[in-house]
Amino acid sequence: MLVVQKYGGTSVANPERIRNVAQRVIGYKQKGNQMIVVVSAMAGETDRLVGLAAAISKAPDEREVDVLLATGEQVTSALLSMMLKEMGCDAVSVLGHQIRIVTDSAFGKARITAVEKEKILSEIAKGKVVVVPGFQGVDANDNITTLGRGGSDTTAVALAAELPADLCEIYTDVDGVYTTDPNITSKARRLDRISYDEMLEMASLGAKVLQIRSVELAKKYKVPLLVKSSLEEGKGTLVREEVLTMEQVVISGITYSKNEAKITVGEVPDKPGIASRLFTALSEANIVVDIIVQNVSHRDYTDITFTTGKADARKALKIMEEIASTLGAKQVTMDEDIAKISIVGSGMRSHAGIASKMFSILSGEGINIEMITTSEIKISCVIKAKYGELAVRALHTGFGLDADSVEEER
Amino acid sequence: MLVVQKYGGTSVANPERIRNVAQRVIGYKQKGNQMIVVVSAMAGETDRLVGLAAAISKAPDEREVDVLLATGEQVTSALLSMMLKEMGCDAVSVLGHQIRIVTDSAFGKARITAVEKEKILSEIAKGKVVVVPGFQGVDANDNITTLGRGGSDTTAVALAAELPADLCEIYTDVDGVYTTDPNITSKARRLDRISYDEMLEMASLGAKVLQIRSVELAKKYKVPLLVKSSLEEGKGTLVREEVLTMEQVVISGITYSKNEAKITVGEVPDKPGIASRLFTALSEANIVVDIIVQNVSHRDYTDITFTTGKADARKALKIMEEIASTLGAKQVTMDEDIAKISIVGSGMRSHAGIASKMFSILSGEGINIEMITTSEIKISCVIKAKYGELAVRALHTGFGLDADSVEEER
Repeated sequence: MLVVQKYGGTSVANPERIRNVAQRVIGYKQKGNQMIVVVSAMAGETDRLVGLAAAISKAPDEREVDVLLATGEQVTSALLSMMLKEMGCDAVSVLGHQIRIVTDSAFGKARITAVEKEKILSEIAKGKVVVVPGFQGVDANDNITTLGRGGSDTTAVALAAELPADLCEIYTDVDGVYTTDPNITSKARRLDRISYDEMLEMASLGAKVLQIRSVELAKKYKVPLLVKSSLEEGKGTLVREEVLTMEQVVISGITYSKNEAKITVGEVPDKPGIASRLFTALSEANIVVDIIVQNVSHRDYTDITFTTGKADARKALKIMEEIASTLGAKQVTMDEDIAKISIVGSGMRSHAGIASKMFSILSGEGINIEMITTSEIKISCVIKAKYGELAVRALHTGFGLDADSVEEER
Repeated sequence: MLVVQKYGGTSVANPERIRNVAQRVIGYKQKGNQMIVVVSAMAGETDRLVGLAAAISKAPDEREVDVLLATGEQVTSALLSMMLKEMGCDAVSVLGHQIRIVTDSAFGKARITAVEKEKILSEIAKGKVVVVPGFQGVDANDNITTLGRGGSDTTAVALAAELPADLCEIYTDVDGVYTTDPNITSKARRLDRISYDEMLEMASLGAKVLQIRSVELAKKYKVPLLVKSSLEEGKGTLVREEVLTMEQVVISGITYSKNEAKITVGEVPDKPGIASRLFTALSEANIVVDIIVQNVSHRDYTDITFTTGKADARKALKIMEEIASTLGAKQVTMDEDIAKISIVGSGMRSHAGIASKMFSILSGEGINIEMITTSEIKISCVIKAKYGELAVRALHTGFGLDADSVEEER
């Protein structure tokens, strides 16, 4: 098999852990696999480099930031290659400009446009393990680019898609994707499988196991991803295309966030262009809005409510207050004391009654729902912050996700 | 003017110092110069990276060591470019593989074979300061290579030779080349000028201001080098072709080393092939020999004495003892308690009596000379270690080098 493995920053944090990675790679190699290993920067290294840039400028030149940050993964690539050779396994590091991984010129958040695979395949053909620094590429003019935080996942998926690989394993510091945050309920359970779409909803909602772009790319090219821990043995979680089974699980996971604030612009005249003016003002201020809810109007007025990250909330409030009077809105209120709870599952497409079950579980705990939004495979509710953990535990049990209530294999 | 400046590790040790470098560069730019800046790794960074490699292997793969070490200069290049842009001066980092600086494939000690200058010239033509990481290049197969410790000097000289530049300035943590070590005599004096040949003798003898290869390269391409301090203002030392003046200074400097040991193989039969056997054995053990002295034979026997670094001395002694009996030598002795004092100066080519003056100055201080070797522009004596500093001071005064005994300009 042709296997692509990706190791995150904590997996290569020091020479000792790099040795463990090399041991695993050699184990796979000895079973007859051809190995390509994508590595992140050693834990803390990217922050160190970002700190150097910050000491020089509040807004350092983006091209040069990429030249700077790309060194982190280059260092790990060299060290892992050395370690493999030290342990008797022929290996070679191949950098972004040597491969080449071609991207657009959006420094700091570049997108891969092409992967030239000849160099990798020729080294593989010589029996070598190929070690690739994640996170980086070069644009058409040979400038170094980076793919954004967590971009090493995307590098691994892009290589796996292009070669193509038979298996793409993502090693990180958790042993897979969980039904919910194990810190909230001890009954949280590792999922053996999850679909790309579910993973996308989980990732954007706070389960930060995989860079969301890497999941989008994996979905596009149908690359199955096995997410595992590099620190302990385990089966991990397989992220792959949805497979319809006889008895499909309805809900895969429950996510939870307390990092948002809710802003309501109250009693706005219900006329065309109002929402556009509000959210254009926010986007011009680079404020990212998460949930937006506008209810049906009554007496020609409506309320528009949205949530945004707590860091941006006061700025957003100020902008809304400035704009409210010109729009004829009666009041602007903010509530930072909220939690957002979401249930995610492909099964809800074909199952009626999931939403009402969610609402009744919450009301059974005496929890009032302040906002509701739904997508095809997700339902989110905003509730008071103090009920957050209670809601997660109640939904986890209510939807049959508890570790003691389901079979190990889905 | 087209100016190449090179800044060493202490000159770019932190963001504050990088700011100072940027200020100087901008000053030159504002006077209408076109600027190319070559940078070393931040002080301590190369050692940190070497330490990581050492934690992985006693003999880490040489190709990967170069991939690892090259990141040090890449980081500085990015930071200086950011700083220049932050301060309103357009700048761009151009890495070894982007220029490209082509080398042979001798990892860790690669030699430059070609410099492709088009990329640099096109960025210069756009009015940008071009920042180049020193010390690195790529071989014909696009592998990253490094030029050896201090290789950034060589990068600067190679660029200056190829472009060609009108001026090549080497900024370091000392303000020039001195007549001798200022730690030994407060009368040591900065030289305004020194010839390439004198600098080569000074460098190899211990005045570690410039990488010796960079001086060889500068000599070959007749690139004048101005060695200055980046930490304080000063005129520095100009290293250039020898210029015959009316009243040439005879001696330029005095160097001094206590890092060697002397080994004597005594009463060897004076037959062809003896020296060859001794020194072949040493070179096979990778022991570098410095001075070799063989005196005229008496009674068909001769003594062969050599010096080598203290680190290798015991190993060399063991090899000599093993070989001595097969050669019929009577005894092998070692003396680690020695100092080597050398006087260097182009002027001695045309001046008689320099050697005898050196010997009489030493004898005037009651210092016995144990070994003597001479080259065209250098005379070295081995003496007892305890007299080392005394000898330097006496020679410095005796040859008229003291700060209070000469004019400022040679």
